[in-house]
Amino acid sequence: MFKGKFITIEGSEGSGKSTNINFIQDFLKQKNIPFILTREPGGTPIAEKIRNLLLDKANTSLCDDAELLLMFAARAQHLNELIIPALESGKWVISDRFTDASYAYQGGGRGLSWQKIAQLEQWVQGDLRPDATILLDIPVDKGMERVRERGETDRFEQEQLSFFKRIRDAYLKLARENPERFYIIDTLPAIAEVHQQLHRVIEQLSDYFRLYP
Amino acid sequence: MFKGKFITIEGSEGSGKSTNINFIQDFLKQKNIPFILTREPGGTPIAEKIRNLLLDKANTSLCDDAELLLMFAARAQHLNELIIPALESGKWVISDRFTDASYAYQGGGRGLSWQKIAQLEQWVQGDLRPDATILLDIPVDKGMERVRERGETDRFEQEQLSFFKRIRDAYLKLARENPERFYIIDTLPAIAEVHQQLHRVIEQLSDYFRLYP
Repeated sequence: MFKGKFITIEGSEGSGKSTNINFIQDFLKQKNIPFILTREPGGTPIAEKIRNLLLDKANTSLCDDAELLLMFAARAQHLNELIIPALESGKWVISDRFTDASYAYQGGGRGLSWQKIAQLEQWVQGDLRPDATILLDIPVDKGMERVRERGETDRFEQEQLSFFKRIRDAYLKLARENPERFYIIDTLPAIAEVHQQLHRVIEQLSDYFRLYP
Repeated sequence: MFKGKFITIEGSEGSGKSTNINFIQDFLKQKNIPFILTREPGGTPIAEKIRNLLLDKANTSLCDDAELLLMFAARAQHLNELIIPALESGKWVISDRFTDASYAYQGGGRGLSWQKIAQLEQWVQGDLRPDATILLDIPVDKGMERVRERGETDRFEQEQLSFFKRIRDAYLKLARENPERFYIIDTLPAIAEVHQQLHRVIEQLSDYFRLYP
């Protein structure tokens, strides 16, 4: 295993990823835990170019298989160039989305078989999985309200409500199936309460990883 | 099976693909065989954007796994949006490169395991394989001479001689392992002689496909 820890942050649209990731960063700085913050799809210059292809609203004809393969191409680059070297050097890697998002968006949302995704996961990652995954959860209608307030939407955010319901269901299914690494945070309450939940989780994680590195 | 026929043209750098593809086009027009001409990576607007990523000399840090996944992402889009609809409508599809090129370049050239490529081939194509593959073969040093005469090189063409030797070996191995669909054309002789060989092959193919559609 690596010296660093790999923490992924997941959540559907409007679940408050940005705010809560900022909170996590502040916590890690306070604790003097060395870390990098990154995101998917993207995280390296080439992977960000792939991200642009994926989010560009002009690419309406992008087929589901190609979308999924692009996600994993960006992921392979991200792992190789950034995530694995950082973990090897002892840093924590905080990633805004990772492979669970492929299960949620391309599996749940687009309806691709989980088995097909699992094949690519194995192909690209081998046995590498996140040490912990924080799922920011919010009912779909509330999340979409927040997205609309933000304004401009990308190729994914233009989808229908039912698409996002399937995504949330998929995330909750992933959490049930991987209880050893999933932590669900309910982001519907006021921000102070959400941060309290989140603080408990990451303090517990940092204690655990200090004891069992 | 499809009404149309799927013919792929393969060959390492400087093997004369462009000239010989023009010759094939003229033949098909003469015979009134409906066809489309396409290429990989690329063939559709999105797949061409992926091609640009793959060939861009700025992307020196692109890792081998990401390169292969990008190839198959472009391929999935190409199949879905162009190749399969054309074959279904009864057209022949002539593609300048297809999956054999992934075995040759990413397998032979980069050293990725053939098994890893075979997994993606199955993932993206299921049982779809070309009806015939014309391999334009030339000794590596002669091919590279022709590339140098052409001037400007892309990210692949900048590789070392040994890289292209491994590619040629991989193509010849593919031809040995798939004799039912491979036709090797030696492109070292004068153009008139090469076209004579090529004419024999495509006439034979068109006769065969007329008799056994």
